Amino acid sequence: MANETITAAKGFLAAGVAAGVKASGKRDLGLLYCPEGATAAAMFTTNRIVAATVEVCREHAASGQAHAVLVNSGNANACTGPEGLAAARRLCDGVGTALKIDPRHVLPASTGIIGVPLPIHKIDAGIGQAVDHLRDTARAGMDFARAIMTTDTRPKQAMRRITISGCEVTIAGTTKGAGMIGPNMATTICVAATDCAITPELLNRAWRDAIGASLNRLVVDGHQSTNDTAIILASGAAGNRIIRSTCPRYRAFARVLAEVTGDLARQMALDAEGATRMFTVEITGAATAAEARQAARAVAGYDLVKCAVHGADPNWGRIICAVGSSGVRLDPQKLTCKIGGITVFRNGRPTAFDRHAVSAAIAAREHTIQVDLGVGKAEDSCYGCDLSRDYVKINADYHT
Amino acid sequence: MANETITAAKGFLAAGVAAGVKASGKRDLGLLYCPEGATAAAMFTTNRIVAATVEVCREHAASGQAHAVLVNSGNANACTGPEGLAAARRLCDGVGTALKIDPRHVLPASTGIIGVPLPIHKIDAGIGQAVDHLRDTARAGMDFARAIMTTDTRPKQAMRRITISGCEVTIAGTTKGAGMIGPNMATTICVAATDCAITPELLNRAWRDAIGASLNRLVVDGHQSTNDTAIILASGAAGNRIIRSTCPRYRAFARVLAEVTGDLARQMALDAEGATRMFTVEITGAATAAEARQAARAVAGYDLVKCAVHGADPNWGRIICAVGSSGVRLDPQKLTCKIGGITVFRNGRPTAFDRHAVSAAIAAREHTIQVDLGVGKAEDSCYGCDLSRDYVKINADYHT
Repeated sequence: MANETITAAKGFLAAGVAAGVKASGKRDLGLLYCPEGATAAAMFTTNRIVAATVEVCREHAASGQAHAVLVNSGNANACTGPEGLAAARRLCDGVGTALKIDPRHVLPASTGIIGVPLPIHKIDAGIGQAVDHLRDTARAGMDFARAIMTTDTRPKQAMRRITISGCEVTIAGTTKGAGMIGPNMATTICVAATDCAITPELLNRAWRDAIGASLNRLVVDGHQSTNDTAIILASGAAGNRIIRSTCPRYRAFARVLAEVTGDLARQMALDAEGATRMFTVEITGAATAAEARQAARAVAGYDLVKCAVHGADPNWGRIICAVGSSGVRLDPQKLTCKIGGITVFRNGRPTAFDRHAVSAAIAAREHTIQVDLGVGKAEDSCYGCDLSRDYVKINADYHT
Repeated sequence: MANETITAAKGFLAAGVAAGVKASGKRDLGLLYCPEGATAAAMFTTNRIVAATVEVCREHAASGQAHAVLVNSGNANACTGPEGLAAARRLCDGVGTALKIDPRHVLPASTGIIGVPLPIHKIDAGIGQAVDHLRDTARAGMDFARAIMTTDTRPKQAMRRITISGCEVTIAGTTKGAGMIGPNMATTICVAATDCAITPELLNRAWRDAIGASLNRLVVDGHQSTNDTAIILASGAAGNRIIRSTCPRYRAFARVLAEVTGDLARQMALDAEGATRMFTVEITGAATAAEARQAARAVAGYDLVKCAVHGADPNWGRIICAVGSSGVRLDPQKLTCKIGGITVFRNGRPTAFDRHAVSAAIAAREHTIQVDLGVGKAEDSCYGCDLSRDYVKINADYHT
């Protein structure tokens, strides 16, 4: 079978080991290594409280260069004070020593329980083990994908190939968690690798656009954690002429990168805690793009809509209500709503529709909710998932 | 037993009958009548989509004078187009004819399913029946309280007495539903009656303050419906010298009115769909009152906090995360959090605490979550309730 993991991109080795941070004994430490050094870009949570690991990663990523990414799961290293900051730096030092690279070229990420000191000795030992296991195989890539998981029920990976200036370029990524997925306060960690040759500025731009159109459109429970981190490394090993401008080659790369992150976002929505199905909210006719986004997020994040989706109930009233209370401008006389492509509300009035057909559309794995606000030409969309008893079970019965 | 219903206030008659709007055959039409005419104040939903009934009520309440309040449950008369507007006016005409009063002195409110035409003939007949049943008894008041219910499991009523210029003044109120409580898209309807003599301006001011500090601080699922309506009538029958300024008598009246609405808000939180307990979020140390409010609402509305409360889990991490992602200014080094009066996080760092004591505090019927943001002196608070499997059950399994 073809390698569809993060090691599918040339120039990367990966490993995922069990360092003993997770009480379950499952893999909890992932290492991605680019021996020749890579161009790097990273994005972080907008929460005002950020994990110590995020502070260090932000500092290291600023150079646009990196040799390695170290992700630990099971402990978020958040709300851990100056000791947490020292621990994050020490882990980077550990990787630097083991791989003989500058510790500032190590990008760290953490996910898991917050407010608990990082078990630094366990991770230190795990780093040695991870370095020993570094390989460019599909198995090593899968180990990495598993090592970053917390309550995810399955690893999430996506890979695409594209030809750029005659060279085969690969983009592969893996991600964990959707929104604030437990056990305590977990995070979205996304790591991607590509062998494309591209400048740090353009990699950064393409990464921001790709994450903005995928992970940042995902509404699970509406909050960002202390740890959300999305990192991409580009090895340049594909051998393509380096992308230096927003030329057609750049646009092709950016489009495929967005496909990879979009695929990952879908997998996250479908694996969100307790989720059984997902949906896309498309808002059109908005006064501004920001208002379109605001309305889309209001619908996707509205518990009553999420419950109706769970029950496959064509309850357009809840959608209209969410839009109405989202604070955006709209024309009540022109407001129109479609569920699964079927019009259920037109020009501010209910319209007859086939309830069984709409219910069947919602009951599918994915469906689309479309709302036209009737005041402008701006549009935006986002992804949401249903709200089930299992979400409550997972998040109420779990005890810290 | 003393009358603690809305008819406890002198000068009011009430009735609650079954007009056949609810398929269950339960009471669904409530009428409150003040034969001598009352001073009136009303507040409405901030949703941009409002029910036809809200449009008519807003128009009628603008005069500051009213003779009657007519509430129907089972049908929201929202998203019903021009026919809905005509139906709302026709109901007021019906009450006006039956009671020989100006239809513009009838304040209507509706709650229940949206997008379905109001069964006008049933309600027309019900109005006659309600007029026949108008009494000043506790039983009539209780009938009224029951007639405005939708998914509420019990009627919600509050009554307080106070002496103003030597006269006994009564304030009594009833309310239904908390937040977006089903079956489809329901509403908060609050109706209060007092026999205090007070000018329309000051009644309006006291009402806005009272609702602002009670119903408007209640976060169940974070949205306002198309129908939210809060009405107060003041008959003046207590015989007190009319309150014409923000004198001590006004302040005493306003304080007791706020007690009544606060009591009602608590009852609503505890009877929210699937809720088993409630909590108050108190934010201090905020840069501005608006930011304090924003942070309080973020905590109260955050599903992971609501789940943790349901599980009696002292999960301060989720509280910190909600505050951090609420967009308000805070000092991560000074951030402090208490649950049930016990400090669980101090100056940005976890602190040892008695987990059993905190868990027991959360497991009580009501508890308080306090967060100090460490940047200013502003404060605000709000009420929330837990999120249970039953919330999902009620809102996913119900089919429109």
